[in-house]
Amino acid sequence: MIDYFEDLQVGQRFRAGPIVVTRERIISFGEEFDPQPMHLGEAQSEGTLAGELIASGWHTSAVTMRLLVNGAMPRWQGKGIGAGVESLSWPNPVRPGDALSAESEILELRRSKSNPLRGVMRIRSVTTNQHGQTVQIVTATMIGPCRTAG
Amino acid sequence: MIDYFEDLQVGQRFRAGPIVVTRERIISFGEEFDPQPMHLGEAQSEGTLAGELIASGWHTSAVTMRLLVNGAMPRWQGKGIGAGVESLSWPNPVRPGDALSAESEILELRRSKSNPLRGVMRIRSVTTNQHGQTVQIVTATMIGPCRTAG
Repeated sequence: MIDYFEDLQVGQRFRAGPIVVTRERIISFGEEFDPQPMHLGEAQSEGTLAGELIASGWHTSAVTMRLLVNGAMPRWQGKGIGAGVESLSWPNPVRPGDALSAESEILELRRSKSNPLRGVMRIRSVTTNQHGQTVQIVTATMIGPCRTAG
Repeated sequence: MIDYFEDLQVGQRFRAGPIVVTRERIISFGEEFDPQPMHLGEAQSEGTLAGELIASGWHTSAVTMRLLVNGAMPRWQGKGIGAGVESLSWPNPVRPGDALSAESEILELRRSKSNPLRGVMRIRSVTTNQHGQTVQIVTATMIGPCRTAG
């Protein structure tokens, strides 16, 4: 069990999945948060650049977050917190019924400059569908607890 | 009505809001997508770095997307599509009952290199709460239709 900053290593990998993204959830997420035609239904998506019903990129991000919590990132006692995202892309769309998995790799670790009991982790997470296509790449920074002041 | 790439200008601004983020939706979003203690309830958040119930950053992103569709970005006939995010940060947390608004500014415009009937827009969107505090800053690239090949 990874509980503290001291337990983390650059290059460590974490995996979880799959989570299936249903047509119904694509549309209900779109209706609530991203009511653009390509997220609302097959008929509505005709004539858009997507040309088919696809999930909002923010839906893909939210499902990826669930995969991270499910095991695709270190648990860090449930006390880690996101500090920001330095890049986020959706190279391929998520379609109804896609089964998504995520794999993360720790890129960098350092102590917080302002608080020696907090550690800073840079991590890249790649989300793929059941065909092995990449649907999201995100590189983010998280802050979490250290066991002792280093 | 802004329908095409040719109607956009660097420096144009777009605003929408507010949308209220309820305690119930913070928790239900957390339960579905980001079940870390600080997103699940007041009691659960004790002892976390947040120390209180706060929205998942991805919930803030999703609400911001809704603000963008509501008017805080150019409509682009509903045919624009996100191409990626180059930075995303959550400088302050979103708390139960917060009323969020967003304002965007077009940073850059260019024709697509591969398709002269598509335009590329870089846009920065700042989301604020009812106290004027910034809760999210996102800089993203979108692709949308041109009226004529330039």
